[in-house]
Amino acid sequence: MDEPFRNSTASKDVKITVIGGGTGSFTMLSALKKHTKQIAAVVNMADDGGSTGVLRDELGTLPPGDVRQCLVALSDSPKIRDLFDYRFEEGTLQGHSFGNILLTALEKVTGSFSEAVATASDILRIDGTVIPATLDDVRLKMEWEETSLILQGERLIDADHFKYDPRKAKLSLVPEPDANPMAIEAIIRADIIVISPGDLYTSLGPLLVINGIGTALQNSKALKIYVSNLVTKDGQTTGFTVNDHVKEIERFAGVDFIDWVLYNNGKPTAKIAEKYEQEKGYITEVDKDLLDKAHYKSLGGNFLGEMAQESSADTLPVTRSLIRHDAKTVAESIMEIYKNARKS
Amino acid sequence: MDEPFRNSTASKDVKITVIGGGTGSFTMLSALKKHTKQIAAVVNMADDGGSTGVLRDELGTLPPGDVRQCLVALSDSPKIRDLFDYRFEEGTLQGHSFGNILLTALEKVTGSFSEAVATASDILRIDGTVIPATLDDVRLKMEWEETSLILQGERLIDADHFKYDPRKAKLSLVPEPDANPMAIEAIIRADIIVISPGDLYTSLGPLLVINGIGTALQNSKALKIYVSNLVTKDGQTTGFTVNDHVKEIERFAGVDFIDWVLYNNGKPTAKIAEKYEQEKGYITEVDKDLLDKAHYKSLGGNFLGEMAQESSADTLPVTRSLIRHDAKTVAESIMEIYKNARKS
Repeated sequence: MDEPFRNSTASKDVKITVIGGGTGSFTMLSALKKHTKQIAAVVNMADDGGSTGVLRDELGTLPPGDVRQCLVALSDSPKIRDLFDYRFEEGTLQGHSFGNILLTALEKVTGSFSEAVATASDILRIDGTVIPATLDDVRLKMEWEETSLILQGERLIDADHFKYDPRKAKLSLVPEPDANPMAIEAIIRADIIVISPGDLYTSLGPLLVINGIGTALQNSKALKIYVSNLVTKDGQTTGFTVNDHVKEIERFAGVDFIDWVLYNNGKPTAKIAEKYEQEKGYITEVDKDLLDKAHYKSLGGNFLGEMAQESSADTLPVTRSLIRHDAKTVAESIMEIYKNARKS
Repeated sequence: MDEPFRNSTASKDVKITVIGGGTGSFTMLSALKKHTKQIAAVVNMADDGGSTGVLRDELGTLPPGDVRQCLVALSDSPKIRDLFDYRFEEGTLQGHSFGNILLTALEKVTGSFSEAVATASDILRIDGTVIPATLDDVRLKMEWEETSLILQGERLIDADHFKYDPRKAKLSLVPEPDANPMAIEAIIRADIIVISPGDLYTSLGPLLVINGIGTALQNSKALKIYVSNLVTKDGQTTGFTVNDHVKEIERFAGVDFIDWVLYNNGKPTAKIAEKYEQEKGYITEVDKDLLDKAHYKSLGGNFLGEMAQESSADTLPVTRSLIRHDAKTVAESIMEIYKNARKS
């Protein structure tokens, strides 16, 4: 696995790079892989919660959880997908997902997380490439300089109700990592880059702040599309509009790179809305005027999918989104935008 | 995986079935697979020690350890072999071998140990078939009826210094299992059956006492070859000659089925002999007169191999044989005997 994509003359497939964390990228990859055989996932490597956190702490390995979800998304073998997502329910292995254990064992055996991912890809017989955003062992840090408040660790930040406006906080990785050169290449060589929906401060942020990622996004000739979150996260992005999400993403990357934003304008059923209200998550508001004035184009659609199964979540104690994107419709919109962009 | 061998018209390869436990079968399979593509391993399923025992106890699954070793023997991918044999050294996973965890997760996901083995075979891309001797959840029992002494569990029996002559003990599995029909078929359809070297009371015995295995061995037209243990086991088979080993094997099976016995007549180096004496293991004595009078033929050779690596043993606290068979020479002898037998 030295190249994110096969030699471009060998295939007419559009090269798609999906950027994000576990669940959001899983959803996008699952749908987009039906449109191309040339797909790469650049994955957040700051996770330190749940099974992933335990394995990191105990064995000193890199975080497998988000990578596992992307691998599973790109596998077409239902049996091996089930195996990778299987979570032990009893005994000393309780709470560990098998795929996490596999990636950790492979890292120990091969001595390299990169090779571990390549071997796991081989076992899963996936079409596509899963690329850790960095191969350095990093932890997430969120710092409000004015008030000297520092939060450390993705798990902790994920569970926090921010005391101050997160837009004033500096997000960084400690120690400062190098970007994985293959991640840079996947960004540079892509025809389409999709920024997955995902938590701003614990999924997209930790990836976009890596040195070199922003510059690569700026230099890439790909069409760059952000798929905006369906709902806001209580205590973190409450009240954030679609445009607020984009602003934060570009702040992390250090460049205004987004070409298109896909946002949901569908209304959830009363049942789902009620469930969300219980956990103070609300459908992301669309600030149409601001979107129209923005440097990017935008497209609204009914992107609400089915209610999610909770079982595939990595860190069970943490609440995950109950609804997912209707990824099929989102993927079709992405391909449509790409086709039209090539014509103009 | 419904058949132990491919359709016989499809291949001229000799069909070899290797019977035994983990380490002995590993050695034989590793060498014999170079002589045929039609190889099956029928595997002991009474293990309850080490990583295997913990997984059984905690998750209620069947014992993966011996099956894992046979799968690894039949795999040609060094990377995946290393992965399967990798044992976690720290944390909550400490002591577990990755292959054991894989088989256990697969049994949970597929709901069937048989299918777990088939899927693992697929992942390892092995040539050959690994067949659990039974698919029932059994524990080993050793009973001296005269004295009412009962030992229960393979781990316990393995570690025991027998108070009474083990040849007077009844070995059984609780509850009484059915043989795996595929194991019976692998025995019936084989051209050569190899009884691996291995502990009499905790590796070969627990397999041969399964109802139906003895009858199948009797009915099979295969050439049946026993590869005798290099050394005796302190407190269990001390003083046993080659012929004593065969007698116990046939007692377990309930039939005199052995056609040939391969025994070692090489002398170990002083260094190895000394190591063995420390743990009171001695080179198995050859009772040439008895062998000449026996109902089976026998062949002696220098079958002493290199000193074994301890790292691949399943249950680390238990002492394992320090020397292994020179399996290449043993396999060549087996193939030679088979060729000559076909001529006569």
